[in-house]
Amino acid sequence: MLQLTVDLGARSYPIHIGAALLARPELFATAIRGEKVLIITNDRIAPLYLQSLLATLANHRAEVCILPDGEQYKTVESAMQIWDRLIAGHHDRGTTLLALGGGVIGDLTGFAAACYQRGVDFVQVPTTLLAQVDSSVGGKTGVNHPQGKNMIGAFHQPRAVIIDTNTLNTLAPREFSAGLAEVIKYGLLGDADFFGWLEANMEQLMARDPDTVARAIEHSCRAKALIVMADETEQGQRALLNLGHTFGHAIESVTHYRRWLHGEAVAMGLVMAADLSRRLGMLDEVEVGRIKRLLQRAGLPSHPTPDMQSEALLAAMQIDKKVQGGKLRVVVMRGIGSAELLTNPAVGLLRETISAAIAGSI
Amino acid sequence: MLQLTVDLGARSYPIHIGAALLARPELFATAIRGEKVLIITNDRIAPLYLQSLLATLANHRAEVCILPDGEQYKTVESAMQIWDRLIAGHHDRGTTLLALGGGVIGDLTGFAAACYQRGVDFVQVPTTLLAQVDSSVGGKTGVNHPQGKNMIGAFHQPRAVIIDTNTLNTLAPREFSAGLAEVIKYGLLGDADFFGWLEANMEQLMARDPDTVARAIEHSCRAKALIVMADETEQGQRALLNLGHTFGHAIESVTHYRRWLHGEAVAMGLVMAADLSRRLGMLDEVEVGRIKRLLQRAGLPSHPTPDMQSEALLAAMQIDKKVQGGKLRVVVMRGIGSAELLTNPAVGLLRETISAAIAGSI
Repeated sequence: MLQLTVDLGARSYPIHIGAALLARPELFATAIRGEKVLIITNDRIAPLYLQSLLATLANHRAEVCILPDGEQYKTVESAMQIWDRLIAGHHDRGTTLLALGGGVIGDLTGFAAACYQRGVDFVQVPTTLLAQVDSSVGGKTGVNHPQGKNMIGAFHQPRAVIIDTNTLNTLAPREFSAGLAEVIKYGLLGDADFFGWLEANMEQLMARDPDTVARAIEHSCRAKALIVMADETEQGQRALLNLGHTFGHAIESVTHYRRWLHGEAVAMGLVMAADLSRRLGMLDEVEVGRIKRLLQRAGLPSHPTPDMQSEALLAAMQIDKKVQGGKLRVVVMRGIGSAELLTNPAVGLLRETISAAIAGSI
Repeated sequence: MLQLTVDLGARSYPIHIGAALLARPELFATAIRGEKVLIITNDRIAPLYLQSLLATLANHRAEVCILPDGEQYKTVESAMQIWDRLIAGHHDRGTTLLALGGGVIGDLTGFAAACYQRGVDFVQVPTTLLAQVDSSVGGKTGVNHPQGKNMIGAFHQPRAVIIDTNTLNTLAPREFSAGLAEVIKYGLLGDADFFGWLEANMEQLMARDPDTVARAIEHSCRAKALIVMADETEQGQRALLNLGHTFGHAIESVTHYRRWLHGEAVAMGLVMAADLSRRLGMLDEVEVGRIKRLLQRAGLPSHPTPDMQSEALLAAMQIDKKVQGGKLRVVVMRGIGSAELLTNPAVGLLRETISAAIAGSI
């Protein structure tokens, strides 16, 4: 088992990573302060892992709230359902919410925990690679508004994150690859050695070799933790985590969040960020090729489909701009392993990158 | 104008108290960081003060959200309405929510601000005496759940509190008295001199003499701030603020929050806490008499009506007990001006106090 601590003073917490951790009662016993637990999961995950988790929690008074699977249930209404259950079950401030599932379950459960009686404990048991390497660290919780993703939320740190790598065995290949996009991102934004390690180990990763996967997760969580510890409430440095995301969000928005998974859009966004960095003279042709190649080996798309409209994509980025107080910010790379924030890049360069991406010529 | 600072490190904020502060643009300009403001108010307050506030905010882009008046609108649904407005108006993280109204508007606005994009600024402009002396300090925000008051919420400090004592001119006498119950509470729990000052100045207070009222508000806010600064997230000392509230909540619960205003229930609760303290040998007969007399001079009820069932009241306190992890906690007084927390008082004594209160014989 690998372990790291996210060091946030009084809000510090451990992340445990390893095979079959769902069957380790002592990990849960340490993380859960009271007797009562409400497990939040969905109807796709429950048949797979709920029974074994309940067996592990035999010494607790565990109740279960099963929601339908899907991003469309990441809503205030679902949070309300959780609050209804907590109140009906007489859960007091000593209760613990336990999120068993992917990012939707994790974000929703964290938000429900943040607001129940002004804040109760929660423990993350992420079951997708994306949730394991992304939402495990950072304390961002929230739900969607009909007009915007994650518009309603809170910063609320979990008491512990327990990552059972066995849960990845049931993950669809496309979902697994989507998680790898974020893993590769950590190499690109701050750690050239890790990027090299990923290049050397992509076959074992794609074969889901448990030790290699655990090491990739641990490294990703550690990379994110370093950034979050320096900037808990997202005032500055944390913006670097958005590498690939300004482009990625625009792609998701133009395709109404339907055609691509978030990680897939991020993968395309990373290639576009690399291309823009090259046009700015910050990255060379060979590096752009390495980035594109590694994403492809991870089973990820590197370009949007040719039917995408470049003006629509640019407009979507400008909408992002409006919400950021008039400034468009893109994270670019100065060599592999070093990211920086660029404010208001030349629109001409952006257009070139977008056109090249759509043409598949990056 | 009186002023004090609630000192909470990075979350510190000023409280301004005085006549006609609604017409002081510089106070608002300092408190509001961006250009955009969303004023949240209700349909009783809006006709009275909204125009003058909008005139004061002429240099900002101020929008208005007017909700119906009443505790029944302190809900997640009302918060959702505020979020709808914020999103429709393209408010970003630099926006400021401004709560113009009593405790319901303040708590709801604070909660909406705490959760919009994981936390935006808010400014309190409390227009009732209760909100001015109670919710101005403490950072407790929240909404009600159909099964429990304030069950959904967050700790979120305002950027500033601006108390215009002129807004009290339109407050109903019963509401004004209800606010005085909390003012008197601050004397009882920590400051015998202030209690003496209230005894000496109750006539001027009831006549709403601006300077006397401002001084009472300032002293109350300062008293609460001292306790909150020592215990921001309610782990210990802050429990003393519940003096009179365990009894008061039981009275409110048994009467379904309809017969009495919160402050009136607290007034009766203070008399009961005094009686219990006397039975415990911590307060003498004369002190109980002074407490009861001062509350009566403030236009407050000192006893529940004779039709109240003592067993129902005791049961309501036991329900409170369940939610507190099996322990019943009552704040008692060791002399006027000194409060302490008593865990699991003898039920026999509680019964005697409850019976005496209902019989009107305290």
